Amino acid sequence: MSEHGWLAVVGVGPGDPGWITPETTAILGSATDLVGYAGYVERVADSGHTRHVSDNREELTRAGHALDLAASGARVAVISGGDPGIFAMAAALWEAIERADHDRWQAVDVRIAPAVSAIQAVAARAGAPLGNDFCVISLSDNLKPWAQIEKRIDRAADADFAMAFYNPISRARRWQLGAAMAVIRGYRDPATPVVLGRAVGRADEALQITDLARFSPGAADMSTLVVVGASTTRVIEQGGGRRVYTPRYYPDT
Amino acid sequence: MSEHGWLAVVGVGPGDPGWITPETTAILGSATDLVGYAGYVERVADSGHTRHVSDNREELTRAGHALDLAASGARVAVISGGDPGIFAMAAALWEAIERADHDRWQAVDVRIAPAVSAIQAVAARAGAPLGNDFCVISLSDNLKPWAQIEKRIDRAADADFAMAFYNPISRARRWQLGAAMAVIRGYRDPATPVVLGRAVGRADEALQITDLARFSPGAADMSTLVVVGASTTRVIEQGGGRRVYTPRYYPDT
Repeated sequence: MSEHGWLAVVGVGPGDPGWITPETTAILGSATDLVGYAGYVERVADSGHTRHVSDNREELTRAGHALDLAASGARVAVISGGDPGIFAMAAALWEAIERADHDRWQAVDVRIAPAVSAIQAVAARAGAPLGNDFCVISLSDNLKPWAQIEKRIDRAADADFAMAFYNPISRARRWQLGAAMAVIRGYRDPATPVVLGRAVGRADEALQITDLARFSPGAADMSTLVVVGASTTRVIEQGGGRRVYTPRYYPDT
Repeated sequence: MSEHGWLAVVGVGPGDPGWITPETTAILGSATDLVGYAGYVERVADSGHTRHVSDNREELTRAGHALDLAASGARVAVISGGDPGIFAMAAALWEAIERADHDRWQAVDVRIAPAVSAIQAVAARAGAPLGNDFCVISLSDNLKPWAQIEKRIDRAADADFAMAFYNPISRARRWQLGAAMAVIRGYRDPATPVVLGRAVGRADEALQITDLARFSPGAADMSTLVVVGASTTRVIEQGGGRRVYTPRYYPDT
């Protein structure tokens, strides 16, 4: 990276420090400023950084602040939770740059560092539910219409993708997860495996394996990711526990 | 992990050692045996491991061999390229366990370690093309019928997902990538961004940003991943280069 200011968007992982890449650790070690949601920034060890924390929903403002700092010569790490490229700060950063069209932001050395995402951590703990074709959908309708989200769920269910859901539920978003499952039940067998992964990699981690028939949206909270299997997804017993996987093969139809 | 034998499925990243997680490095450091495709195993530094290399297509045989070693007391790392849970060895391992139903494999302590996948590395280099809902599809029809792959592409295009393609082309698989693009052209504007990421994180890395109209399957090879944008995906100029991102918002329709 440049000896002048720069901006790197990094992910500090879903929770386990063992998932933070050496590239990200090196960026954090040479950054002068950390920018991000407080819950993520506080996971970074103190080494004299200036910390700029903000509310989780102020992505564009945060991106603009980080760009201003970097344009002024700071070495800025923008902190995401999992992978910054998946429902996180990388897209918000490019959006801020495009909207503002400031000359001073054009010259900033910007780099995105890939990271282990929360959905990969959940999948690893569960077995391998994303071992064949899959899709990843955010159920948050803050920035996109529910009709579009529902269409994506419908088409993905029809095409028999395994499906991973981010932002399944929140205080202001109570019915969307139930509505998503209702769409999927129109296509899939009631015995289709469903995985709920909560806070994976953190002290309060919890993993639940259930099925479409028994699944209740109340089992999910804001820290939960939900994976719904394809028609081929299977639950097996191994090592005294249950594991969910989607085979590499798909039967001829 | 147990003091007795164990088996861990790990990913040594798409190529850059800076993307290998500390968890994976610790597993490799305590393993006695490495099992995997030669191209991946040779990326692991020598520290007295016994190495068991095999052809890239012998996943089930390899998984069974690894399970036998662990059941005999070895500490076995099964090596994948990117994330072992995405089109890689984790699903093959569970499949081997289910098919064989050997008592001696039931007791093995099995762990999957999540890792940065190749598609995340490509996305990070390109900008943030997977910043909103997306799907991931393997174009290999070795283990699944082309009709099913084509249905997935069709429904994903109809629902306006950004789409990432693994295994786009090989010596034995020449026409599938062109057929996939023909399906997508039925739904998307010719100006839709397309990213080709080749060998990202390795010395011969190459990234190409083009569009649906200009895309030619001949630009991809066995080391290439292809990302096709959603209708909202945009190309912007920044820092003297072009970046591709899919915004977090989606317009009302």
